[in-house]
Amino acid sequence: MTQAAEYIQTDRSTPTRYASRASYDRDAVHAVIDEALVCHVGFIRDGAPVVLPTVHARDGDTLYIHGSSGGRFSLLDGEPLGVTITLIDGLVLARSWLHHSAPYRSVVIHGAARVVRDVSERRAAMGALIDHVAPGRSADTRPPTAKELAMTAIVAIELSEVSLKSRGAQIAEEPGDEELPYWAGVIPLKLTAGAPVPDEQLKPGVGMPDYLIDYSRG
Amino acid sequence: MTQAAEYIQTDRSTPTRYASRASYDRDAVHAVIDEALVCHVGFIRDGAPVVLPTVHARDGDTLYIHGSSGGRFSLLDGEPLGVTITLIDGLVLARSWLHHSAPYRSVVIHGAARVVRDVSERRAAMGALIDHVAPGRSADTRPPTAKELAMTAIVAIELSEVSLKSRGAQIAEEPGDEELPYWAGVIPLKLTAGAPVPDEQLKPGVGMPDYLIDYSRG
Repeated sequence: MTQAAEYIQTDRSTPTRYASRASYDRDAVHAVIDEALVCHVGFIRDGAPVVLPTVHARDGDTLYIHGSSGGRFSLLDGEPLGVTITLIDGLVLARSWLHHSAPYRSVVIHGAARVVRDVSERRAAMGALIDHVAPGRSADTRPPTAKELAMTAIVAIELSEVSLKSRGAQIAEEPGDEELPYWAGVIPLKLTAGAPVPDEQLKPGVGMPDYLIDYSRG
Repeated sequence: MTQAAEYIQTDRSTPTRYASRASYDRDAVHAVIDEALVCHVGFIRDGAPVVLPTVHARDGDTLYIHGSSGGRFSLLDGEPLGVTITLIDGLVLARSWLHHSAPYRSVVIHGAARVVRDVSERRAAMGALIDHVAPGRSADTRPPTAKELAMTAIVAIELSEVSLKSRGAQIAEEPGDEELPYWAGVIPLKLTAGAPVPDEQLKPGVGMPDYLIDYSRG
C-alpha cells in the first residue's frame, strides 16, 4: 500500500494557535516519535483526564505502549486516547518576559486504544519497545517466556490523526527591545547519556555491545 | 498555616501498580516539579483526552501554566485537569526483555483548572514562569505591558491530590539470568545544556548573566 506523505489534517489536529508551526509530514512525525524515549498517554477515568508517562515504540503507522497486565493500560480497549511526545531542544531568552520561549518538537496523537491480543503481534511489539530503547538490544537479551508475555499488556494506537508542532531557536523581540541592556540568546538542551555503568555481576568476557557506545537519542 | 508534610492519598492518586514506588512527600514532589522544565497537561475536549506540553511554575502549592489568551488553556476554567511532570534519569538494561526499565521520577496531579483573572496574581505567575526557566531572569528582562499581560492566559491548579512515583537505577533479573552471556547495566540520562549562544544584536558590554553560567536543571 502506498502511503500518503502527510497525515490527514482534522479539526482537532489543527492547533488553536501558531497553526503555521504545525506539520503533518509523515517522516517528520516519525522522526520525533523515534527520537523521544517516552510519551505521555492521556485517557479518561471517572470523567477526569489522567496522564501517564511510558516508553513507546513505533512500527510503521502503529504506536505501541506497554504496561502491566494488571495495570490501567490493560483496561483501555476501545477508549479514546491522547498521546503526546515532546522533545525540548533549548531555551530562548529574549529581552522581554513575553518572548521567552523554548525550541521544541511535539507530536500530538488522537485515537483509540486497541489492547493487543494476538501473541505474535504482542511479541513483536515488545521487541520493538526494547529496540526503541537501544536498537539491536532485543536480539542481545533473553526474550520473554509465555508467562512473562502474559504479564505485559500491549496497547496499540494507530497513527492517523497526528500533528507535529515545532518551534526553532529564533529570538523574537518587540520593536525597540533590541536596545534594552539585557542579555538575550539561546541555551541548547539535549537529553544526554553519561558513561554506562556495568552490572557488577557481568560474566567474564562480556563487553559492552557496540549499540550502547556513545548512546544518544536522535 | 502549617502545612502537612504529605499530600493526601486518594483512590485515584494511588498507582494501580508498584504502589510501593509512590510517595506523597510534599518536598519530594516539589523537587521534581521544580527540576522539570515542562509538564504535560491533559484535558477533555469533545469527550476525548488531549495532552499538551507546556512550561510550568510552582508557587507554594499552586502550579501555574500559561498559554495564549486565544488558545485552549483560556477555555478550561473549572474543567478537570490531569497534569504530569516526568524526569527520565536513565535506562536499565537487564539480561531479559522483561526487566528492561527506566529510572524515572514522575509527579501526577489531579485537579481542576482555575483561569486566573486577578492582575497581580497573573503578573506574579508570569514572573514565576520566567524564573522557573532561569532563576533571577524575571528581574533582568522587561516585564510585560498591560497589553502583553492581556495576551497571556494563566491557568492555576492547586496541588492537593498529587503523587510522586519513582524508580531507581537498580537492575532486576529473574533467578538464573545473571548467568546469561549478555551485557547488563545502567545508562544515566540527563537533560544537559550546551554553551549559550548569544543574540547577534547584543548591546556592547552586555555579558552573560551569572544565573546562566553552567545552566542545569536540578
